[in-house]
Amino acid sequence: MGGAKLAEGLYHVLPPEELTIIVNVGDDEEFHGLHVSPDIDIMVYTLAGIVDESRGWGIRGDTYNCLEQLGVLGHETWFRIGDRDMATHIHRTMLLNSGKQLHEAVDDIRRRLGVRCRVLPATNDRLRTMVETVEGVMTMQEYFVKHGTRPEVRDVWYEGAEEAEPAPGVVEAIKSSQAVVIAPSNPLLSIKPILAVKGIREALEGYGGPVVAVNPLIGGRAVKGPADRMMRSMGLQPNPLTVAKLYQGLLTDMVIDLQDREYEAGLRSMGLGVHVADTLMRDRGDKVRLARYICNNVLGMKL
Amino acid sequence: MGGAKLAEGLYHVLPPEELTIIVNVGDDEEFHGLHVSPDIDIMVYTLAGIVDESRGWGIRGDTYNCLEQLGVLGHETWFRIGDRDMATHIHRTMLLNSGKQLHEAVDDIRRRLGVRCRVLPATNDRLRTMVETVEGVMTMQEYFVKHGTRPEVRDVWYEGAEEAEPAPGVVEAIKSSQAVVIAPSNPLLSIKPILAVKGIREALEGYGGPVVAVNPLIGGRAVKGPADRMMRSMGLQPNPLTVAKLYQGLLTDMVIDLQDREYEAGLRSMGLGVHVADTLMRDRGDKVRLARYICNNVLGMKL
Repeated sequence: MGGAKLAEGLYHVLPPEELTIIVNVGDDEEFHGLHVSPDIDIMVYTLAGIVDESRGWGIRGDTYNCLEQLGVLGHETWFRIGDRDMATHIHRTMLLNSGKQLHEAVDDIRRRLGVRCRVLPATNDRLRTMVETVEGVMTMQEYFVKHGTRPEVRDVWYEGAEEAEPAPGVVEAIKSSQAVVIAPSNPLLSIKPILAVKGIREALEGYGGPVVAVNPLIGGRAVKGPADRMMRSMGLQPNPLTVAKLYQGLLTDMVIDLQDREYEAGLRSMGLGVHVADTLMRDRGDKVRLARYICNNVLGMKL
Repeated sequence: MGGAKLAEGLYHVLPPEELTIIVNVGDDEEFHGLHVSPDIDIMVYTLAGIVDESRGWGIRGDTYNCLEQLGVLGHETWFRIGDRDMATHIHRTMLLNSGKQLHEAVDDIRRRLGVRCRVLPATNDRLRTMVETVEGVMTMQEYFVKHGTRPEVRDVWYEGAEEAEPAPGVVEAIKSSQAVVIAPSNPLLSIKPILAVKGIREALEGYGGPVVAVNPLIGGRAVKGPADRMMRSMGLQPNPLTVAKLYQGLLTDMVIDLQDREYEAGLRSMGLGVHVADTLMRDRGDKVRLARYICNNVLGMKL
């Protein structure tokens, strides 16, 4: 969510050919025999301008007749796939079954939907974010959608991450970039499963340029979603210091919200450049403003 | 169409557990990476009472948002699949990909949609009705839907029919039945691809009981569809004698329409029992009336 919002801002601030967006696949899952990539689809729908902004996922104005009928045929329907959204999954599955890799399928879909910047899955390999809760171990979507993020989280891990190779283009995009921005997404569910891919972590460690994380917590609270509750139940303080530690060894800079000035000194003592801004993104204007702030004030571009 | 109509009549006249419907798969085709069985779906939707009767296919009140979005993603959309209808194809494909055979998938779907009689595909193997037209060779759906049955037909054949095995249950159903009824469907596109399966043809040849065909042409014209035009362009007269010859060696009886009394003597001279009835099925009442006529007057049941 926060990831797609800031990406939308960057997409409207930077020339699209200079922007590459690397997206989490840890919440990919098979539904109805179709390969579903929720984070990638939110990103692509957002950049294509067709996302249902009131919910933050799916396609605006979509209907649910196919899913309802799948329910009649005995399928679980807690993961809400609209009829237009279903087309994406049918198309992606067809491409994958025909021998294409995930990054090729994503590239095909984003082009057909008119998205002009590159969107890359972190990996083409199987990587699954697993959430251990008081009600048992579940996949990310089971935790997030089926259980509505209600069960208390004890631990999170990224199945397959150590063996997963970065998708073609990911390491090259990092190496050739002027700067890397880590978006204000849930650190445990959206960012860490990207950084858990060994080749991506190593590329960032050896990168040399600015790596700027935007802190997703404002005043100790997630703007949306369970990041703050998860951190607390895992024994972590939901504040910028914790986020900086989760990304330790990879960051050069952090952007924090005006409400979090109290952490500035602590972050500086970790060796980070700290930048204070209004990070709440309510609308397109906010997204563009924050993106421009990062490019101009943090990275010294002249846009 | 005529097949589904008479089946609906028989379904409401006979105890469903005594009825087995064997359906053509020659127009099965893959669309969007999904296995589509048009004839089976028309049959199941009809018996389930959800068919769009005004069109004779698809589900009543369906929407087309998924298909429209597949068009955005570059897919051909001439084969009109509604959103609810798409669920059937997604479900069937999932079952087939999980190792189930087509007859198992069909049985699962008909049960879930509340159809109480058995519906069997003629074969689980690949069998495709190919239509040679003046505009080239095409599959049944390309001829029927993409080209709207406009190109003149020169020949029709059934690819894979000689190698195809009858689906489990088909031969047993024939052998154990009191009677076999060949529905008033297009002989070349819907009935012959069933009879072209060697094991089915042999089962009927060795059957011994009554095999009653209902002539699909009324006064030399198809009630719906291109049967009459196809026959003519293939050098066949569109009348009951031609249909009887197409099924030669398999029939004991034929039901013809009141308008076709002139062919009665000719059919008798072919050794067939001939039964004259009003065969046009406009509504449920007509379907039940014709089904009851066949059971009581032709087959001597007491329903």
